[in-house]
Amino acid sequence: ALASRILADAARATVGALAGKRVVITAGPTREPIDPVRYISNHSSGKMGYALARAAADAGAQVVLVSGPVNLPVPDGVAVRPVMTAQDMLQEAERVVAEGCDIFIATAAVADYRPAACAGDKIKKTDEAMTLSLVRNPDTLATIAARKNPPFTVGFAAETTDVARYAHDKMQRKKLNMIVANDVSVPGLGFNSDQNAVTVFWPSGEQAIGPDSKQAIADTLVALIAEHSNKVGNS
Amino acid sequence: ALASRILADAARATVGALAGKRVVITAGPTREPIDPVRYISNHSSGKMGYALARAAADAGAQVVLVSGPVNLPVPDGVAVRPVMTAQDMLQEAERVVAEGCDIFIATAAVADYRPAACAGDKIKKTDEAMTLSLVRNPDTLATIAARKNPPFTVGFAAETTDVARYAHDKMQRKKLNMIVANDVSVPGLGFNSDQNAVTVFWPSGEQAIGPDSKQAIADTLVALIAEHSNKVGNS
Repeated sequence: ALASRILADAARATVGALAGKRVVITAGPTREPIDPVRYISNHSSGKMGYALARAAADAGAQVVLVSGPVNLPVPDGVAVRPVMTAQDMLQEAERVVAEGCDIFIATAAVADYRPAACAGDKIKKTDEAMTLSLVRNPDTLATIAARKNPPFTVGFAAETTDVARYAHDKMQRKKLNMIVANDVSVPGLGFNSDQNAVTVFWPSGEQAIGPDSKQAIADTLVALIAEHSNKVGNS
Repeated sequence: ALASRILADAARATVGALAGKRVVITAGPTREPIDPVRYISNHSSGKMGYALARAAADAGAQVVLVSGPVNLPVPDGVAVRPVMTAQDMLQEAERVVAEGCDIFIATAAVADYRPAACAGDKIKKTDEAMTLSLVRNPDTLATIAARKNPPFTVGFAAETTDVARYAHDKMQRKKLNMIVANDVSVPGLGFNSDQNAVTVFWPSGEQAIGPDSKQAIADTLVALIAEHSNKVGNS
């Protein structure tokens, strides 16, 4: 925790650590329509993504947030591209990354599945039980990381069990440069909270950060990302 | 529209039209958990229910809002009982109504179905497709209307087709005293909007109100409800 605080202070001191960089951050939940009024979503508040956007802008980056529906103020100097579904999220992220992107940070809690068909009219309730057919959504993070000249790509993993193993597995499978794992099973942290505790993994190391405010954790993360993205040479 | 405006003005003038009455209003969406992070919900903002709570409090009623998750300020003098799922909504509404209730207004967009089981750990995505088994939720509105000494009960119908027919059918089937039908297919009105247009049906008549602000429509509705609930003799 002491090391984290020193890093966080360093991040704030290092104004310009991301000067000249273009950073694209996905944030918030997606909403997958079942019919015109119903949808599947998740408890992501978008706070971590918005805190990272603010930290990256403070560090001198040009920042674009590709954001699902949230109730958060947009940080100063950050551009927002609002999206609703996972398919919107992929399309908008690809468009923004194609315009130029040094660092891609995927904090959005993108729905893994969507209803196979969105009913045009509101579904009438007639049966005691029903089944909803779901199909896999496209994977924005893996798609961006698989580009020919990929940005330095950072993923998030929100798991309830076996956090370290899933995080390492996801990093390798999706060819990420770094992954940030929350443990959402810790009460009062993660989704919808202003506090968080994470462990950051990269191919050759890891670092625990927090518990601390999401903004303090974002500042530390941006310092780590700036340091590692320069090492990889995506500059 | 002119008749509506006159009624609305009359409602505002008639301070005390609901003096001594206890009014219970359900509002907002419900969230039905799929697993610890995912849920099924709907686009209800809760604005109509909160506007009605304010109008009823202004008319002198003691008002309790049984409210799903929304981002709205609580009107002055209104008590809020927060709930999350349809099952919570029924349980809390029955508890509040049992404490005494002259008028029950159900604006909440209660999920008709919930996942048959909520997975304890986050579901892993492994398949290209999956099915979600859903079961019917309890019907708060019909349950309250079916009580031995029911309050004057007002329902809402958010339909996308055949609005009048569904509204009349719902009123008879659920033994309601009055039903308010939105046409959510009209762009810019209804869910998440500050504007609305409704048609109110009671057994012997109907009245169109709006387009107008949700607060103006709520004022007119409260005046109509006060008038009709006195006729029925639930005083």
